[in-house]
Amino acid sequence: MDEKQKNGVDGKVRFGFLSTAQIGRKNWRAVFHSGNAIVTAVASRDVDRGRKFIANCQQQAPFETAPAALGSYDELLASKTVDALYIPLPTALRKEWVIRAAEAGKHVVCEKPCALNAADLEEMMAACRRNRVQFMDGVMYMHHPRMGAMRSALNDEAGFGQIRRIMAMFSFRGGGDFFKANIRVHGDMEPAGCLGDLGWYCIRFMLWAMNWQLPREVSGRMISGTEPRGGVAPVPLDFSGELFFDGGVSGGFYNSFLVGMQQWANVSGTKGALRVNDFVQPVNDLEAAFEVNGAVTKVKSGVGGQPDGEAVSQQMYLFRHFSDLVLSGKIDAFWPEIALKTQRVLDACLESAGAGRLVALG
Amino acid sequence: MDEKQKNGVDGKVRFGFLSTAQIGRKNWRAVFHSGNAIVTAVASRDVDRGRKFIANCQQQAPFETAPAALGSYDELLASKTVDALYIPLPTALRKEWVIRAAEAGKHVVCEKPCALNAADLEEMMAACRRNRVQFMDGVMYMHHPRMGAMRSALNDEAGFGQIRRIMAMFSFRGGGDFFKANIRVHGDMEPAGCLGDLGWYCIRFMLWAMNWQLPREVSGRMISGTEPRGGVAPVPLDFSGELFFDGGVSGGFYNSFLVGMQQWANVSGTKGALRVNDFVQPVNDLEAAFEVNGAVTKVKSGVGGQPDGEAVSQQMYLFRHFSDLVLSGKIDAFWPEIALKTQRVLDACLESAGAGRLVALG
Repeated sequence: MDEKQKNGVDGKVRFGFLSTAQIGRKNWRAVFHSGNAIVTAVASRDVDRGRKFIANCQQQAPFETAPAALGSYDELLASKTVDALYIPLPTALRKEWVIRAAEAGKHVVCEKPCALNAADLEEMMAACRRNRVQFMDGVMYMHHPRMGAMRSALNDEAGFGQIRRIMAMFSFRGGGDFFKANIRVHGDMEPAGCLGDLGWYCIRFMLWAMNWQLPREVSGRMISGTEPRGGVAPVPLDFSGELFFDGGVSGGFYNSFLVGMQQWANVSGTKGALRVNDFVQPVNDLEAAFEVNGAVTKVKSGVGGQPDGEAVSQQMYLFRHFSDLVLSGKIDAFWPEIALKTQRVLDACLESAGAGRLVALG
Repeated sequence: MDEKQKNGVDGKVRFGFLSTAQIGRKNWRAVFHSGNAIVTAVASRDVDRGRKFIANCQQQAPFETAPAALGSYDELLASKTVDALYIPLPTALRKEWVIRAAEAGKHVVCEKPCALNAADLEEMMAACRRNRVQFMDGVMYMHHPRMGAMRSALNDEAGFGQIRRIMAMFSFRGGGDFFKANIRVHGDMEPAGCLGDLGWYCIRFMLWAMNWQLPREVSGRMISGTEPRGGVAPVPLDFSGELFFDGGVSGGFYNSFLVGMQQWANVSGTKGALRVNDFVQPVNDLEAAFEVNGAVTKVKSGVGGQPDGEAVSQQMYLFRHFSDLVLSGKIDAFWPEIALKTQRVLDACLESAGAGRLVALG
């Protein structure tokens, strides 16, 4: 595959979806609205499931040429009409498929948590570097224009001052057969449980607020977990962690599969405070809000309405930003770097929870 | 002093203020509006300062008979026209004066933190029990009718479910010469610093939410502290703590003298969430608000406007409730008990911060 082909055709990056995971429907629509990307293939071990997924998504957001349904992941890796992969596989499977994608010359959008641990993630990223493909994790909120507006607010010396404390909570209550059937509490596939699924966003938010400074030490506590079964360690069902940065700045977070939906963050400065009630997925992502010292700012996403259902502005921006990078032919080291930092802090929180003591980040 | 005299005259409890601390001005007005209490004496080591304090307070909230200015605390203890003392002395001095007040047959409203440690507080309470005087700490918000409305919300199985997590933050930024001159950062008088001054409210709120169940374990961390001086240990300037209750319920709090004013609490249930933005001192205490699942409830305090300045509804209720107890001639063990529990948790948080490990509550 020549470089030109690998980096899109006719100003569009051609995406292949690796698996028909539910979250892919939303991201299909995001790609559809991106303006610089299309979906050209969907791979599933069950080709019929792939066909149904495509038919269903095409009803909502129809690409001119319907994507191909491929019967294996290998076929997708070999496809000549695919530049980039969207990989929402379970965490335990990501290492293999990200490395294989990179080796096949495909750029990668990878869901979070990116890996089982930072050592695995470093291998994945080394493969991406070697093969000159872009890596980005699936933290959508990073791409909403609200982030820029919040950054300006945090930079406002007069109104906010210096950051001293960050607090974040992200939770939802698993219903029905969640605790029996959902992948997110399966120790073999998702050993970090709610910390991986929800804590990744909280840790990322704190690192963002701190301009990517790593904490010096972290503590973590698994408050409750699944019953151990078949030699598999318990998976966190609710988890609290704390990050200690140089200079007396600290962050505390809490995640849970056991309490109702909450997704707020609070950043405290020497003079003011920033609060955002929906930092992960804005309730209205076409006009996302945050508060500084009680005054509300609303940030328009710049995308028109989403007549085909739930708004996907920030997802759309993720695919647009990613595709801009791919089309540019340059690799941006920032995105793998922040994914790795997030993973390292997450690993340290888990290690602390297991050891019952503070863990230093080297 | 006979029991009748000790328990008020003409349906009013007669208060003596032990010191002219600034906070006394607010509580003077609270007593004034209580309907069942009056101030009859103010003691200061400097009798002129006492006279000025009285003259100033009388301008705002004039008692029919101006209180007497007494030139020593001993004189106040001996006064035959005083049933109860309000003691806002620095923490290190409270033990001596609460015990002496009890031995003089005076009921006691004591500012927080009540003591240097739980052992001291137990001695203070033993003295109160022996002398059959009522003890209550100065946590005003406990007396606002909002608390009852919030309790009903937490008890709502359908809307809130079971408590799993409590988070609270109380902070203000010390300005001017606060870090040099303010008593709250003097290690000899206020060794618990922001944990004593602000954390007391957060811990109390969590114990309240948990219906006075003690946590099984706590952790604490002094994030920054004063410089040690003259052999006096550093005083916490910002502090975070976490409480772990039986059954997987947990609480996290953060206090600081280094960030702008914040005073919020968040209680997460298996189904819903309660949020209060101003749990310590309602921004509008005549109509104090809280939110459950995003819907705002406002609780009228039932007191008329406060034409003489800042509203003091919850302070007024504190003195009214306390005076009701005194007038009843019965001692209510609840109030000393919750003060002691708060102190025990606070002590354990400090111990954990010093030792760098979890501390179990016996």
